[in-house]
Amino acid sequence: MRIKAAVLGATGLVGQRFVSLLANHPWFDLVALTASEKRVGRSYGEVVEWVIGEDVPDAVKDLQVLPNDLKVLRREGVEVAFSALPSSVAWGVEESLLKGGITVVSNASPMRLEPDIPLLNPEVNVSHLEVLEKQKRRGWSGRLVKVPNCSTAILTLALKPLIDVYRVRRVAVTTMQAISGAGLRGVPGYMIGCNVIPFIKGEEEKLTAESAKILGFVDKDSIRPSEVRVSASCTRVPVLDGHLESVFVDLDESVNPSEVVKVLKSFRGEIAGWGLPTAPENPVVVRGEEWRPQPRLDVMAGEGMSVVVGRVRVDEGDRLLKFFVLGHNTLRGAAGSGVLIGEAMVKKGLL
Amino acid sequence: MRIKAAVLGATGLVGQRFVSLLANHPWFDLVALTASEKRVGRSYGEVVEWVIGEDVPDAVKDLQVLPNDLKVLRREGVEVAFSALPSSVAWGVEESLLKGGITVVSNASPMRLEPDIPLLNPEVNVSHLEVLEKQKRRGWSGRLVKVPNCSTAILTLALKPLIDVYRVRRVAVTTMQAISGAGLRGVPGYMIGCNVIPFIKGEEEKLTAESAKILGFVDKDSIRPSEVRVSASCTRVPVLDGHLESVFVDLDESVNPSEVVKVLKSFRGEIAGWGLPTAPENPVVVRGEEWRPQPRLDVMAGEGMSVVVGRVRVDEGDRLLKFFVLGHNTLRGAAGSGVLIGEAMVKKGLL
Amino acid sequence: MRIKAAVLGATGLVGQRFVSLLANHPWFDLVALTASEKRVGRSYGEVVEWVIGEDVPDAVKDLQVLPNDLKVLRREGVEVAFSALPSSVAWGVEESLLKGGITVVSNASPMRLEPDIPLLNPEVNVSHLEVLEKQKRRGWSGRLVKVPNCSTAILTLALKPLIDVYRVRRVAVTTMQAISGAGLRGVPGYMIGCNVIPFIKGEEEKLTAESAKILGFVDKDSIRPSEVRVSASCTRVPVLDGHLESVFVDLDESVNPSEVVKVLKSFRGEIAGWGLPTAPENPVVVRGEEWRPQPRLDVMAGEGMSVVVGRVRVDEGDRLLKFFVLGHNTLRGAAGSGVLIGEAMVKKGLL
Amino acid sequence: MRIKAAVLGATGLVGQRFVSLLANHPWFDLVALTASEKRVGRSYGEVVEWVIGEDVPDAVKDLQVLPNDLKVLRREGVEVAFSALPSSVAWGVEESLLKGGITVVSNASPMRLEPDIPLLNPEVNVSHLEVLEKQKRRGWSGRLVKVPNCSTAILTLALKPLIDVYRVRRVAVTTMQAISGAGLRGVPGYMIGCNVIPFIKGEEEKLTAESAKILGFVDKDSIRPSEVRVSASCTRVPVLDGHLESVFVDLDESVNPSEVVKVLKSFRGEIAGWGLPTAPENPVVVRGEEWRPQPRLDVMAGEGMSVVVGRVRVDEGDRLLKFFVLGHNTLRGAAGSGVLIGEAMVKKGLL
Repeated sequence: MRIKAAVLGATGLVGQRFVSLLANHPWFDLVALTASEKRVGRSYGEVVEWVIGEDVPDAVKDLQVLPNDLKVLRREGVEVAFSALPSSVAWGVEESLLKGGITVVSNASPMRLEPDIPLLNPEVNVSHLEVLEKQKRRGWSGRLVKVPNCSTAILTLALKPLIDVYRVRRVAVTTMQAISGAGLRGVPGYMIGCNVIPFIKGEEEKLTAESAKILGFVDKDSIRPSEVRVSASCTRVPVLDGHLESVFVDLDESVNPSEVVKVLKSFRGEIAGWGLPTAPENPVVVRGEEWRPQPRLDVMAGEGMSVVVGRVRVDEGDRLLKFFVLGHNTLRGAAGSGVLIGEAMVKKGLL
Repeated sequence: MRIKAAVLGATGLVGQRFVSLLANHPWFDLVALTASEKRVGRSYGEVVEWVIGEDVPDAVKDLQVLPNDLKVLRREGVEVAFSALPSSVAWGVEESLLKGGITVVSNASPMRLEPDIPLLNPEVNVSHLEVLEKQKRRGWSGRLVKVPNCSTAILTLALKPLIDVYRVRRVAVTTMQAISGAGLRGVPGYMIGCNVIPFIKGEEEKLTAESAKILGFVDKDSIRPSEVRVSASCTRVPVLDGHLESVFVDLDESVNPSEVVKVLKSFRGEIAGWGLPTAPENPVVVRGEEWRPQPRLDVMAGEGMSVVVGRVRVDEGDRLLKFFVLGHNTLRGAAGSGVLIGEAMVKKGLL
Repeated sequence: MRIKAAVLGATGLVGQRFVSLLANHPWFDLVALTASEKRVGRSYGEVVEWVIGEDVPDAVKDLQVLPNDLKVLRREGVEVAFSALPSSVAWGVEESLLKGGITVVSNASPMRLEPDIPLLNPEVNVSHLEVLEKQKRRGWSGRLVKVPNCSTAILTLALKPLIDVYRVRRVAVTTMQAISGAGLRGVPGYMIGCNVIPFIKGEEEKLTAESAKILGFVDKDSIRPSEVRVSASCTRVPVLDGHLESVFVDLDESVNPSEVVKVLKSFRGEIAGWGLPTAPENPVVVRGEEWRPQPRLDVMAGEGMSVVVGRVRVDEGDRLLKFFVLGHNTLRGAAGSGVLIGEAMVKKGLL
Repeated sequence: MRIKAAVLGATGLVGQRFVSLLANHPWFDLVALTASEKRVGRSYGEVVEWVIGEDVPDAVKDLQVLPNDLKVLRREGVEVAFSALPSSVAWGVEESLLKGGITVVSNASPMRLEPDIPLLNPEVNVSHLEVLEKQKRRGWSGRLVKVPNCSTAILTLALKPLIDVYRVRRVAVTTMQAISGAGLRGVPGYMIGCNVIPFIKGEEEKLTAESAKILGFVDKDSIRPSEVRVSASCTRVPVLDGHLESVFVDLDESVNPSEVVKVLKSFRGEIAGWGLPTAPENPVVVRGEEWRPQPRLDVMAGEGMSVVVGRVRVDEGDRLLKFFVLGHNTLRGAAGSGVLIGEAMVKKGLL
């Protein structure tokens, strides 16, 4: 028996990725797709501007688009809703579903920093699901788990193995983020063509706050942030998919690059051995070529669920570690992590 | 009486920029253009693949391309040669010219770190010309001044005002460098299209070593490097012209961003008031808009000779300063600085 | 005494070009800028997202943005309004101005095909201004002239000299149009990056109908379309500015390519010798290099007002003429032609 | 028993595609890879700059790169060589192999127009294999078949079904060709970024001559060209993979677009039912969306072996048919067709 699932905001870029991952999923049965009012009532295949390659999956082409409405979703028997709603409208919809008993795995930014709401990058902190207990006090009969910001998901997956082993003091990261991170129409072609835009609204603050939470730990039912400070400068580059990040890590000890590579390569994370369908074999791939990772060549590593690290080297008495990390921003950084969270919840009996 | 000048390697991208700046220069008379053997003897207009916009200047269109040969250049009365030769062949040619009494302003990388050879970013360290005295020991009758690496010229112009005022400990920079930095055919379109390449051979080492030299000072006829350490991670992005750099500056004191902006804006540098034709009014332009500097919009600030700083902000108890700086890599970062050096030498009676 | 002018829709891409051309114009005094309601009342410098390079001209930076309202524009003494309004709202506004005695030069598509409204590409058909007489029957006290569709303006400027000399039967054109043709936000970066989109809504129909009108002639106060048929296939390419068109011309006679080049080069058009400030010396520039015209290298020919033709050659018994033509879509194809029309009207005493 | 195969010129872009298609092929056993002298002797995985995504196939990673030498290839037992050699060196190597008894399927342009050498686009003209008989007169003990030029392979696959049904008089095509068509380093990033180059050396002539041959027929052991004339204008656009072509077809009869679509969709071609592993189910895919085919979305249709047609429409009394066709230039337009040819030869007992 597969679990009945919905995708909220199914026509956007992250929505399309959710649909693509769930259309033929072994554990979930995608029964409902929602979109904004003007699209409701028509078939998904007809209203979606499918831009992620190939075609709309046959399994969902003819699904009638539904409104973001609790009653309608309950009528379809939806048990879990994967939300790709825009931040401006997400919370109102998600809260009504939670009250009505539908579990929500949400990619929208509101509520990500609440101490009783897990912000999950599964390999890094699936243990944070523990705090779900505390959510009962909110009077919800569904559960809420948040998917991290895209750049933060990618960064923390590379930082986690290092923090486990080394005394990390501070991280300074410069991101080079793909156009798809702003959604289908977020970045005008005229502005990004042959250009770099050195600003993404709210992104640097998210990298700091969400990294601290994800790398933190559960203390008495609540998530306590890590003391590793992340400082970020974010840019948009003319790349379609795949955020590349240039990372400088200040350490309180000397490190050896080839050992760092070993540490990264051997990382399996908190869900190792769980048998989750969407989990990549190697969450952190390390490439030895000097000229990689590159968005175009490496973005689909682990079917878009691995991050790829390269150019690991040290500076300043070996206490400044430098490397690049790349990840697929709408898979590992959004829909893929969302589905992986759903799978982890199934495994833990939370769905 | 204008000074007779040559451009060596005049058909490449930096060579074209030199030609464009010198073709109608008030102080220099461009009488000779050199290129590789197979182009020698034909007219410049015929052999150059002019790609920097508009047309080959009329003044040089019909100049016959010459070989890189001392006798030939002396026959033309050349007093100063601006060299855009490829690194692999530059030093052999440049040395013969120096021995033969022709002064060389060179953009090629060999010899940049020699203590008696000024590596000049004029507003920052024109005073380093002092060490030219010491060059006499080499037995040259010409003088040699080197133009810094492109990314380094841009970075040090933004750092100099800060170092003059604040206690700077360390700089961590991630560069996003334009395609033109690798010359006309250096970066294949198939590799850079919708992509970022996280590696530029030798660039990170240059940023460290050349920054230290440029920001250093003359001590007993020799250039002593600065103690400010620059650590770099360099990338190539699909931008035509204009290197953008994301800079993190660790300070030993707290700073206020609006004061930093004032410090940058008020910087005029060591050549202020000299009346050099190519010197920009404001070497460091600061933009207040959050979304700038952008290569496409800001690369031509100060006719390509200013660097443009934006998003000045602080983090971590105000001791970590962050900003972006942009500069035109083949003007401020190569030919433009070369011509400005030439002008400064004229002013100092060295030409 | 300069003529008081307004730009309607001054914050969009074509609006910015109008502002840039009119801010320091010798014949026009730019006194009013309009935009949509939410921007009204603030200074132009503050509300415009200036993306066409450099900075907002000082002359207009502090102008307060006005609504699209007849009374307001009359209060400012506006005699002519250059309209860059979106097609959906343009006609309502333009008609009210015409009734109220303000002459309108409009880039918006509605009314372009009316027989008593000149659709002007000045070098080609300034004589069509004759039909303005007939507009009086509409009860307007202002006059209306329309600027052609961008691709059509570029194409007809290259076709006119040929039609004057040769028996042209049919034209088949494939356009490769720049992103800016769809306005600032018209083409999402995610869709156009490393891609070509083989469709532009309404464009092919415009090329057919507007070409016929522009190349037509005045017969008894009315414009009779040309019999030269244009058939078009239109695409969007990842180019910022500059539409490139691949043109096949079927002729009823044999032609010689070098004669065709002479015909094109010698074309001066109907406004030759009028002394209009924005008129390019050579409306049609012909390049001999096989690899040109290219958008990046040639788009600013004649300060964006010339079209550039290249690769003129023949096929099939010399009765099929092939060439490429390039023009700046927001200058020659929009705002530049608009200003040139205004100048021609001044010269003819119509303003 | 699989047939022992070599790839000549295995490190270039087309070479990499051949390797990727043959590494795990059911009928061929890839036993030899050749490259230029400086790479010989090292492992393929080490010398190839693999840029077509993912990794070098494990099956060939450790193959030692061989020289283009008959003896060496015979020692490896090579029966068929798929040649991706550069045109300048191809013929010398290929001829020596043919004399030595190795059959060659070659993507290089020399000899494509010889009347006794099939130029094969299998679905269109596999019957031309007949003329192989005639090759015996050349004294070769191997057989030579040529793969067509990329743009021509794509175009003729879309034209063949039309020519079979309608009276086609002339075709005028404008191509928008991907960067990969010029090989890994053929198009400099600085020239193609945000640009279109309206020239590809030799391409227009190839489209005319090769289309005539491919669409022609065998008459008395020799290939007689078709009378359908193709006239072409070729451009390079900033697209990675996938040539898009804008096609105008002049007909001697009226046609109905929806019937044309049916004709195209129902085309199966001369190898239908042969069971060739690389043959796409539908050689010609027709998309109904106005905004397709697009290189980014459609290039991998039929695993890169189908061409995708869209925007089928008519003009001028329905006697001018217009449409776009897209194909993968290094799969359908090069290596994919090469492998398909090899498969067809196996089926016919020619290998």
